[in-house]
Amino acid sequence: MKARIYVSLKPTVLDPQGQTIRSALTSLGFAGVAEVRQGKFFEIELDGLVRTEAERQLEQIAQDVLANPVIEEYRVEILD
Amino acid sequence: MKARIYVSLKPTVLDPQGQTIRSALTSLGFAGVAEVRQGKFFEIELDGLVRTEAERQLEQIAQDVLANPVIEEYRVEILD
Repeated sequence: MKARIYVSLKPTVLDPQGQTIRSALTSLGFAGVAEVRQGKFFEIELDGLVRTEAERQLEQIAQDVLANPVIEEYRVEILD
Repeated sequence: MKARIYVSLKPTVLDPQGQTIRSALTSLGFAGVAEVRQGKFFEIELDGLVRTEAERQLEQIAQDVLANPVIEEYRVEILD
């Protein structure tokens, strides 16, 4: 079973890296770019788990290991 | 208009960061995790562009700025 976990900064948290990319894009001539925010994702391959158990484990992995719940939010997507 | 650009290592390129996460998860008891690969994504807000022009610019941004086409691949997704 394949899944993806997307982790990004909460909307209320400043994203200096995204701001730097935005101003770089503006200076390169991409004037239409109003905002950039960066995040990361993890493609996870799971073996030998039924779907409900996989969902439970992915939720726990996202919450406890991959995201910092103080400043980040996450989204779990199961692909097949 | 909102769009996302996903950048990840090509499947043929080793991902030591993902391997480290996988072995950390295994030692934490998530035995079902067979593989982890990490990538990044960029949430981009575009103003004042028609869709075809936005698509062209996003493609160019992904190709020339955000991804390293030697080792990375990318995917552009327009949200609205």
